[in-house]
Amino acid sequence: MIVLATVADLRRQVAAWRAEGHRVALVPTMGALHEGHLALVRRARELAARVVVSIFVNPTQFGPNEDFAAYPRRHDADAQMLEATGAHGLYLPPLQAMYPEGFATTVSVAGVSEGLCGEVRPGHFAGVATVVTKLFLQAAPDVAVFGEKDYQQLQVIRRLVADLDIPLEVVGLPTVRDADGLALSSRNAYLTAAERTVASALPATLKAVAARLAAGGAVAEQLAWGREALLKAGFQSVDYLELRAAGDLAPQERLDRPARLLVAARLGKARLLDNIEVS
Amino acid sequence: MIVLATVADLRRQVAAWRAEGHRVALVPTMGALHEGHLALVRRARELAARVVVSIFVNPTQFGPNEDFAAYPRRHDADAQMLEATGAHGLYLPPLQAMYPEGFATTVSVAGVSEGLCGEVRPGHFAGVATVVTKLFLQAAPDVAVFGEKDYQQLQVIRRLVADLDIPLEVVGLPTVRDADGLALSSRNAYLTAAERTVASALPATLKAVAARLAAGGAVAEQLAWGREALLKAGFQSVDYLELRAAGDLAPQERLDRPARLLVAARLGKARLLDNIEVS
Repeated sequence: MIVLATVADLRRQVAAWRAEGHRVALVPTMGALHEGHLALVRRARELAARVVVSIFVNPTQFGPNEDFAAYPRRHDADAQMLEATGAHGLYLPPLQAMYPEGFATTVSVAGVSEGLCGEVRPGHFAGVATVVTKLFLQAAPDVAVFGEKDYQQLQVIRRLVADLDIPLEVVGLPTVRDADGLALSSRNAYLTAAERTVASALPATLKAVAARLAAGGAVAEQLAWGREALLKAGFQSVDYLELRAAGDLAPQERLDRPARLLVAARLGKARLLDNIEVS
Repeated sequence: MIVLATVADLRRQVAAWRAEGHRVALVPTMGALHEGHLALVRRARELAARVVVSIFVNPTQFGPNEDFAAYPRRHDADAQMLEATGAHGLYLPPLQAMYPEGFATTVSVAGVSEGLCGEVRPGHFAGVATVVTKLFLQAAPDVAVFGEKDYQQLQVIRRLVADLDIPLEVVGLPTVRDADGLALSSRNAYLTAAERTVASALPATLKAVAARLAAGGAVAEQLAWGREALLKAGFQSVDYLELRAAGDLAPQERLDRPARLLVAARLGKARLLDNIEVS
C-alpha cells in the first residue's frame, strides 16, 4: 500500500494506475477505522482494480462546540487495517494542503441538506460537500464508496455529484452492525460500558417503529412512541426521529412510497446516528 | 467546427482529442460574441491544439430584475464567427441539461465575491461560480480563457479553481477596446447612438483617475472626482468606482501595492463595467 501525502503524488499514482488500464475507487474516511470502513474497502475492491482510501478529519464539517479536537486519530492502526484489507493507496492530506491561506470556496446543497443533521449541525453538510468535492477532484476516481450509516450525507453527495457533473459513480453500502444491532461508528468509542448496553436500544427502536409503520400505524404517533422508547431506554435526548422519502429526503406524513426512518440521539458523550429502510 | 449539445458528446470529443495527444482549451461565454470573445479564442488556440467555446446564457447569475430575458441571443451569427476564428468545438448545452429538475447545489466564493458587483448583484457570483464549475467538470479542459473585462469574475474563478482543486489552468486576457477606448461588451448593444458617445467617458475617466493616483493623489478624493466626472459626462449613476488590490480585491485606501481600479456605471438600459491596472 502506497502512502500519498500530496495532491500531486495522488494524481500521479491514479494516472499511473489508469494508464495500466485499471479502474480506480476512492473511499473517503475520517480515519478511526472499524469493520464498517473495511466493508467499504472490500466493496471498492470489487468495483475497481485499485482502491485509494483517504483519511482526513475535516474541520469545516465540525461545529464550534463539536468534537473536532477529540475525534479519534490513530493513523498507524488505520494503515495496518487498510493494508490487511487490500487497499492500494492511503491518501493523508495535511490540513494546510486542503485549506491553504486564503481558501474561500464552499459547496452547498439545498433540499437534502435541510432538516435532520442539517438542522442540528448548521454548516455541517456544506463542510462535507466542500471537502468531498475536493477529494473527488483531487483523486478523480471512477467510483467512490460511502456507507448508508450516514444516510443524509450519502444523499447530499449523490446530489452534488449529479449537479456539478463530477464524472464518477457513487455507491452506497448497507450499514455494518455489531451482534446486538448497533451500527458501527468511530464515535461508539465515546461510550462507557454501561452506555454501550443502552445503545442497542437505538437499532431495536428503529426496527420496532418500522414494523409498527409497516403494519399501518399512524406516522406521527409511532414516531412519538419511538422517541419515548429511546428516552426510557436511557438516551439523554433525541435530536430527531423522522420518516423521510428514501431519495430526496422529503418529510413523509404517510408511508406511501419508499421511505427511510432516521434517528440521531445523545448518550453520554456520543451522538449516535442510525437509519433503516421502511416499506 | 463540431457542434456539441450534450455532456456525453462533449466528453467523448474532448477525450478523442486528448487521445490524439492534443491539449484542450475551453472558452466559456454567454454568446452575443464580439471581437473580445474572438481574442479569447485566438489566445486559446495558442495555448491548446483544440478549442471548445461554450455558449450558455446562465439564468442563475441574473437577478430577478436583470436582463436575462433581454440578453442578446444570436447563435447562428456566433457559430459563424467562431468557425471563422478557428474554434474546433461549439458547446451549446440546453437549460434542462444544466439545471435538471431537483438541481440543488451552489458553489460560492467568499472574499473576492464581496463588494463591487457582488454587492450590486446579490447571488450573481454564486451563479457564475456554479455554472463555471459545471462547465469545467463537463469539459475537463487543460486550460480555460477569460477576459479581464469582468475582472472580479476572473478572480472568483481563479479562487474556486484553486480551492476545489479543479485540474486546469485559468488564463486571463486584457480587455479588448473600441477605437475610443470603450471595452467591448455584449451589453453595449443596449446603447443608443447618443449613449454610445457618452460611454467613452468610462475608460477615459478610469485613465484619468489612475493617472491622478499614480501621481500621488489621495485615493478617496480621486475616486470622488471620478464619480463626479462620470455623472457630468452623462452617466445616470455610478454603482461603484473603487481601488482594490489586484489579486484578492481587498479594498485599498492607499496605492501601495499592485492595484486595480474598477467601475460599474449605468447609462440608458446598460450597466457598463470596466477596470484598469494602477501602478
